[in-house]
Amino acid sequence: MAILFEHVTAVTMDEERRVLKDACVAVEGTKIASVGTRRPDGPFERVIDGTGKVLMPGLVNAHTHVPMALMRGYGGGCDLQTWLHDYIFPAEAKLDEQCVAAGAALGLAEMIASGTTCIADMYMKTGTIARQVLEAGISANLSCGGVYFGAPEDFSPEKCGDCQNQTALTEEWHGAGDGQILVDASIHAEYTSNPPLWQWMADYAAAHGLRMQVHASETEREHQECLERWGETPIRLLDRYGVWQNGGTAAHCVWVTDEDMALMARRHVTAVHNPVSNLKLASGVARVPALLSAGVNVALGTDGVASNNSHDLFEEIKLASILHKGVTRDPAAVSALQALEMATVNGARALGRTDTGVIAPGKTADLILVDFTAPGLTPCHDVYENLVYSARGSDVSMNMARGKVIYENGTFVTLDLERIRAEVEGYALPRIFG
Amino acid sequence: MAILFEHVTAVTMDEERRVLKDACVAVEGTKIASVGTRRPDGPFERVIDGTGKVLMPGLVNAHTHVPMALMRGYGGGCDLQTWLHDYIFPAEAKLDEQCVAAGAALGLAEMIASGTTCIADMYMKTGTIARQVLEAGISANLSCGGVYFGAPEDFSPEKCGDCQNQTALTEEWHGAGDGQILVDASIHAEYTSNPPLWQWMADYAAAHGLRMQVHASETEREHQECLERWGETPIRLLDRYGVWQNGGTAAHCVWVTDEDMALMARRHVTAVHNPVSNLKLASGVARVPALLSAGVNVALGTDGVASNNSHDLFEEIKLASILHKGVTRDPAAVSALQALEMATVNGARALGRTDTGVIAPGKTADLILVDFTAPGLTPCHDVYENLVYSARGSDVSMNMARGKVIYENGTFVTLDLERIRAEVEGYALPRIFG
Repeated sequence: MAILFEHVTAVTMDEERRVLKDACVAVEGTKIASVGTRRPDGPFERVIDGTGKVLMPGLVNAHTHVPMALMRGYGGGCDLQTWLHDYIFPAEAKLDEQCVAAGAALGLAEMIASGTTCIADMYMKTGTIARQVLEAGISANLSCGGVYFGAPEDFSPEKCGDCQNQTALTEEWHGAGDGQILVDASIHAEYTSNPPLWQWMADYAAAHGLRMQVHASETEREHQECLERWGETPIRLLDRYGVWQNGGTAAHCVWVTDEDMALMARRHVTAVHNPVSNLKLASGVARVPALLSAGVNVALGTDGVASNNSHDLFEEIKLASILHKGVTRDPAAVSALQALEMATVNGARALGRTDTGVIAPGKTADLILVDFTAPGLTPCHDVYENLVYSARGSDVSMNMARGKVIYENGTFVTLDLERIRAEVEGYALPRIFG
Repeated sequence: MAILFEHVTAVTMDEERRVLKDACVAVEGTKIASVGTRRPDGPFERVIDGTGKVLMPGLVNAHTHVPMALMRGYGGGCDLQTWLHDYIFPAEAKLDEQCVAAGAALGLAEMIASGTTCIADMYMKTGTIARQVLEAGISANLSCGGVYFGAPEDFSPEKCGDCQNQTALTEEWHGAGDGQILVDASIHAEYTSNPPLWQWMADYAAAHGLRMQVHASETEREHQECLERWGETPIRLLDRYGVWQNGGTAAHCVWVTDEDMALMARRHVTAVHNPVSNLKLASGVARVPALLSAGVNVALGTDGVASNNSHDLFEEIKLASILHKGVTRDPAAVSALQALEMATVNGARALGRTDTGVIAPGKTADLILVDFTAPGLTPCHDVYENLVYSARGSDVSMNMARGKVIYENGTFVTLDLERIRAEVEGYALPRIFG
């Protein structure tokens, strides 16, 4: 199907970071066919008038646990460890496939309505999440968050549940939907596993060409205890096992050292900044200006909504820009453009998906329209200022993922919100919290 | 007119902070007539079904410069002084009454759509703003932000423009609309005036029973230069002239000392916390947990949208709660309830309007409905967690100010958005920036 956007302000995020006024962007199938200010020749099955709207790349949420939408606001006001052990882990122990499906669908609906077209997710029952993502229509790098609590000497891949999960996930889902689903290798965190798992996961990633997802240096306690146990920071310790050889994402990085940053830049490890979650859980403020100076690719994530409590990535974009200005007292820290890069091109790079996060011919048509006619986006002196500091997820009027319009003017095309709500309220919540 | 809300979850913010499920709230004229779980006897001209919605007090934006909506995103990326002197002051020099009217209407529209029913505003051409507020239907404490750049020995009230402005504003507008408009005395800031104005304004406030609005200790530089000039902090210096004798609001308070806090608590001076603006302008992070511990009333403001760039107070609520958790590394700092208090009851107290900010019989019917059926507000484990961390201004489905529905389901009742847009784009922007 060929679709034309016309009369739109196109924030391309291309290499020249061009912003085109009164632009035309044509989509054919799953790809962007042309970008310019001249109307291309048709025919087009659909022409979308973008007057008063900004067309930009769909957002990349580079760290989330999408089914945790079920736990929105559950156990608020605690520190990370109390919250995990007293609230989240007991609730998660009751999750079955049907709960995960319902939670994933709910979380995906929220993401789609607020402009996300691509995610990196880490959660259990990952195949179930993959099915929900395929149905919803966005793209995802999925991982199962490998843990291993056994004694190192007892480790064997055959008896390690998450090695088995990883293998099954990769075999069934890696590359599914013409690349809509990619499977990443993953280690939940240093403190939830030990060397045999790290070695196995590193070797597995190398053998299958997979990227890696890890939580790293989220809290000071985690970072310090790792130093005490191993004499190394989480980032450097895992590197000793070859975990980063295909690159990947290190979520949080609140407490990473300058040496960690240098290593991350060298190994093409993305720091996924989750400012809302890090503040809410009192983990601290990641040194994002230092990460950028060190040449580290910085992307953005919402984390699970249980610690956010929202999947609206526009909020992370704004906070990523203003938080570091305030904390470092430098009004030039993390510019509006840099924050927008984190949520688009940097996020795409983080996931190894350089075909998204940008409006350019040949790229995947992951595109969103933002309505600039609302009072809260009027006037527009600078399109980046408005996108970063004034726009909300609720200003997204259309979400196109892989060339298909999946959300428009408040209506979901691929998802059935009534069915999702019935599953969440009728089945999942009673089962987990009833 | 009598209106009944039924089947609603009422977050009352009353003294017991009651949350009533399946509640009925009746409104008669401008007042709340009854609150409870039993349906009161009618007749009612209108019955509003609140199923799936939360009814809460309208929000109080306790520090703003509403016509600055015209400068949204203008001159971004600068520090406060550069931004003011190179961008904002030159633009403001071109403002006429028609620009201020257009900007005020635009800013009020944004506030109303995002749930605000009461504001404290400081800006020039204040009578024009008063007319826009009256038309829009919300309540406002207005001030003209007194400055005096002359030599102290040359001061005379007759020749001081802002003394004349203050007098005219009070005479024409204080108490207008049955208290819809209140006039506050004001001093823009210590660094834009000197002792004769402070003395005159303090005496004037005392003689007319007015509260005071001041910017205080927003930036370290302002705070330190005041100390160097006068040997006192702004809060204490102004107190020597009797500025706080009727209480009032000190906006920002990023750099206030422990002694300032003790004085503010004694004098009933509210600290208006503007977390987004303070971060964006790199001013720093106000010590809100310390202010609360010292017994200071803390309210919330957006500041002008030129440094925000939004009038959505829900964002300030969330940030006020999460920012201090992250910066102090205490997950119990500024609870969800405390943040909500800042935007409701504390804001009302800040403005000397104890008839708003609460759902209780006899209080002014300043009420908003928040739609909890959106994916981003599903599920609801805790109504405060959802209101503070998940809700956006865009989730507000109805705004009732002083008993009148002024906004409902995206439609303004008192304001004409097309006319506002025509005034902004056709007249104000060309005049200021053309």
